[in-house]
Amino acid sequence: MSEKTREPNALAAIHQWLAEREHQAAQLLAQMTRCRSVQGQETEIQQLLAAQLERLGMEVDLWEPDGEELSSHPLFASPRTDFAGSPNLAAKLPGSGGGRSFLLNGHIDVVPVGDPEQWTQDPWGGNLVEGRLYGRGASDMKGGVAASLLALQALQGCGIRLAGDVIFESVMEEESGGAGTLAASLRGYRADAGLIPEPTGLAVFPKQQGSLWFRLTVHGRGAHGGSRYEGVSAIEKAMGVVAAVLELEKERNSRITDPLYAATPIPVPINLGVIGGGEWPSSVPDRVALEGRMGVAPDETIQNAQAQMSRAISKLGQKDGWLAEHPVELEWFGARWLPCSLDPESELVRMLVEVVEEVRGESPAMVAAPWGTDAGLLGAAAGVPTVVFGPGVVATAHQPDEYVLLEDVMTAAEVIALMLLRWCGRG
Amino acid sequence: MSEKTREPNALAAIHQWLAEREHQAAQLLAQMTRCRSVQGQETEIQQLLAAQLERLGMEVDLWEPDGEELSSHPLFASPRTDFAGSPNLAAKLPGSGGGRSFLLNGHIDVVPVGDPEQWTQDPWGGNLVEGRLYGRGASDMKGGVAASLLALQALQGCGIRLAGDVIFESVMEEESGGAGTLAASLRGYRADAGLIPEPTGLAVFPKQQGSLWFRLTVHGRGAHGGSRYEGVSAIEKAMGVVAAVLELEKERNSRITDPLYAATPIPVPINLGVIGGGEWPSSVPDRVALEGRMGVAPDETIQNAQAQMSRAISKLGQKDGWLAEHPVELEWFGARWLPCSLDPESELVRMLVEVVEEVRGESPAMVAAPWGTDAGLLGAAAGVPTVVFGPGVVATAHQPDEYVLLEDVMTAAEVIALMLLRWCGRG
Repeated sequence: MSEKTREPNALAAIHQWLAEREHQAAQLLAQMTRCRSVQGQETEIQQLLAAQLERLGMEVDLWEPDGEELSSHPLFASPRTDFAGSPNLAAKLPGSGGGRSFLLNGHIDVVPVGDPEQWTQDPWGGNLVEGRLYGRGASDMKGGVAASLLALQALQGCGIRLAGDVIFESVMEEESGGAGTLAASLRGYRADAGLIPEPTGLAVFPKQQGSLWFRLTVHGRGAHGGSRYEGVSAIEKAMGVVAAVLELEKERNSRITDPLYAATPIPVPINLGVIGGGEWPSSVPDRVALEGRMGVAPDETIQNAQAQMSRAISKLGQKDGWLAEHPVELEWFGARWLPCSLDPESELVRMLVEVVEEVRGESPAMVAAPWGTDAGLLGAAAGVPTVVFGPGVVATAHQPDEYVLLEDVMTAAEVIALMLLRWCGRG
Repeated sequence: MSEKTREPNALAAIHQWLAEREHQAAQLLAQMTRCRSVQGQETEIQQLLAAQLERLGMEVDLWEPDGEELSSHPLFASPRTDFAGSPNLAAKLPGSGGGRSFLLNGHIDVVPVGDPEQWTQDPWGGNLVEGRLYGRGASDMKGGVAASLLALQALQGCGIRLAGDVIFESVMEEESGGAGTLAASLRGYRADAGLIPEPTGLAVFPKQQGSLWFRLTVHGRGAHGGSRYEGVSAIEKAMGVVAAVLELEKERNSRITDPLYAATPIPVPINLGVIGGGEWPSSVPDRVALEGRMGVAPDETIQNAQAQMSRAISKLGQKDGWLAEHPVELEWFGARWLPCSLDPESELVRMLVEVVEEVRGESPAMVAAPWGTDAGLLGAAAGVPTVVFGPGVVATAHQPDEYVLLEDVMTAAEVIALMLLRWCGRG
């Protein structure tokens, strides 16, 4: 007898319960989106979620992690060590006993808005237009967090109790390397398996690339701009550095053969995200810094990726005498996400695929994520094998006019509720 | 009877007076260099100079220009309109009557230090090492301002009174377009001729290029760095913009034939001084801004240079569909220096050349400056034909380890003193 047939009434009840509450779900998500939870400003949304979890009768734990203590851990990676204004939230729904435990993890920190001119919707408005709920973080990943919360509400609303415990983690700092998930793991929250509803567009991601931040500092020699031939422009030298990084990205991706990456144009991208240098229009710039994010393949080590970048940057000096004498500096700083690789044939992944088939009536796409999540860290720090599946339009994450389809949030909630029932068992 | 023979005793006396005071001159210049007179912080050095000028019995005028009033003038160009903390200084030494007047103008604002790591000397130390006085602004142009002051002191010290008036202007804001010189001109300070002791390395500059600041804003489209193929990197697009600017510079300079530019590798350079864009290492940058300074040939108009830049930037869209739809924006902002072109055969230039020959025993180099000065503005706003000649190592201006040769400061002081005597006549 397959899993599918065991709880036909439960699925129908959950579906019905959620379908009748789409309006309230949209209101909750809009309210979450209106919280401007860029890093350091996560208190408001965590308090909002804590109130929702308390209403479910869960044991709620809201705390600001001690950055000093956290930063001494070998898995810590963050540009900051002070987490004032960035509380973490965890809550437990105790099972009736005898079932396996499950952990739902999601982050509520969002990246900055970027150039507001490029938004046609209010980035903090939570406006619902033709089924799309707009706002910074709508896809990445307040939609997913809302889906997890809705799943728990639906189970309770349908009078379904679970045998195993459910842990709900709403963490900060995912966008800078997972200090929130690390803090929750070190506080003792763990389970037999986990799910992170990052915006996969309802695909199943058993593997995610890791990634890490780097800084390249390019040196020039200052001079008066009017006699700029007396100097060496760090901006011009930076052009060569950008070209070398693009070349390295091309080389690395030409070696990726994992079929889960077949549909991904650049499986392990190297993104140059920030550039800055020079102080004065009339001076030759003596320093330009580039900051970026290097993808690490799911089965690659962080160390291997770092060594390839080092080599590519060292090679610049072979063709450029100035760079030979004034080498570009490479630093690994701030954020880092560990790669994650689950066996697509493991019980956790197979069960999720079946649940999605049952809810949606079709098989989900199975891909390797082109971006990092906290799943690798949950595995390394808390021993929780974690799969990634959630609502959200990945193409709009970190972009202007970010949005999530409300319909997908409801579908994900249904999948998560059924997944909890299957994994933890009925109590 | 040539000018040379008219005042043999005066020259010898001035030379002797200065030679005996090299130590005090170094102390004065060191004291000036220790004033951290970046823009907005010029009060301390102006007060120091005001005290020196008062000691010479001059009528001293120290005032903070009214930015509101100033900014309505058509020749105004500055990134700011509030000049609090940036007083201007002018002083008059009345002649005995019957002589022509002369104006000495110099700026005491300095550009920022840049990367302090690249300095081996304290940028604010004013240290004298093997005849070199080090510090930000030592060459550009506190050495020249000191030379002008020393010239007046030497004339007084030798008991030489002049027939014509001398105006001494110590102005702010030259590094951003000359609001200080404009303010002094509008306050009524003018003369029959002028000299600006910018760092020419004791060469005579009858022509200087003009220049103006521009900003290029390059648009991309944000995306999550992990799926960066969904976005368009403004950093990558900026590389093409940098290349187009370099190409335009090449074209423009290939057309310069003025023999005064024969020794200048890039007569009218286009300097890209500042780059900045992107907010997050893991996001595709949606905007990069480049700020720079475009040289304008002495006999070219500002309008012509602007039109050429506009054309070069518009052309980018012809080869790049993204840039065709999202054109690079060009703005002319902040500073602007008018070009200046004196006839090398004019009395002012000939007289200066002869005085330099007399003091140094050899003819000065005569070149067209590769950078702008306030001379064009002095001509346009106050009607003062102005030549540029001064101590200083132009290759170190705006650079780390900027210095001036103390010996050149003393030589310039001697040249200026004798020039005043020749131009204004003995009183």
